[in-house]
Amino acid sequence: MKPRINVITLGVGDLGKSVNFYRDGMGLPTQGITGTQFEDGAVVFFHMNDNLILALYPRTALAKDAKVSLGPRSPAELSIGHLVGSKGEVDTIMNQAEKAGATITDPAHDRFWGGYSGYFQDLDGHLWEIAWNPQWDVED
Amino acid sequence: MKPRINVITLGVGDLGKSVNFYRDGMGLPTQGITGTQFEDGAVVFFHMNDNLILALYPRTALAKDAKVSLGPRSPAELSIGHLVGSKGEVDTIMNQAEKAGATITDPAHDRFWGGYSGYFQDLDGHLWEIAWNPQWDVED
Repeated sequence: MKPRINVITLGVGDLGKSVNFYRDGMGLPTQGITGTQFEDGAVVFFHMNDNLILALYPRTALAKDAKVSLGPRSPAELSIGHLVGSKGEVDTIMNQAEKAGATITDPAHDRFWGGYSGYFQDLDGHLWEIAWNPQWDVED
Repeated sequence: MKPRINVITLGVGDLGKSVNFYRDGMGLPTQGITGTQFEDGAVVFFHMNDNLILALYPRTALAKDAKVSLGPRSPAELSIGHLVGSKGEVDTIMNQAEKAGATITDPAHDRFWGGYSGYFQDLDGHLWEIAWNPQWDVED
């Protein structure tokens, strides 16, 4: 397998609310909900960096498509890391997320690894870590 | 927030076993476990496409770091999409994953959206969809 990830799909409870959160609240670009002509086809794509796509898909549809059990939600399965160029930018995005309806689980603070970061959960509990790492240049 | 994802961190139960799965079984490049000089610092990084990093981090450490509850594992939280250029490549990678110890939840087959894909779960239940999409060119 080539070291390549093309799509990250997050299972969500309410596609409409999640689009609002990521598009209107967080400012991510999307054409909105597509695929509604198919049963369990409704999905939202955000075009992120370097051809990577962030997709939102109902958890029920994902479980059905992948043939796995639905189960209760679990907050410690993954974290999406978004790196920025300064501590101030971390604070700005954490504030933006909180206003958009995210749950701040760990407000931004200095980390043992030399950087500064905070965690929030989106409407479905998916973790994002907004981080500044002095050893890591960020291309805007 | 800029539309950018730098890191995808997967919570795992056994870092050593998961390194073996992704490095030796799936062939992803890594320097192995690093950060062991710090409490809860042990982590594994795989350099994927376009500066994206796939990280493995113990679920217990992720929950502690992000200040969320650990909870039982849940298989329908996310799916990582890996696109390839042909149906044959999908089959090859699905076979590779099964040999490496993955659980095939949905063997590869034609999909309603016009492509061909299969799903497997890694050692911790995280879903990967290996897919060929005739409308999507893949850069190797």
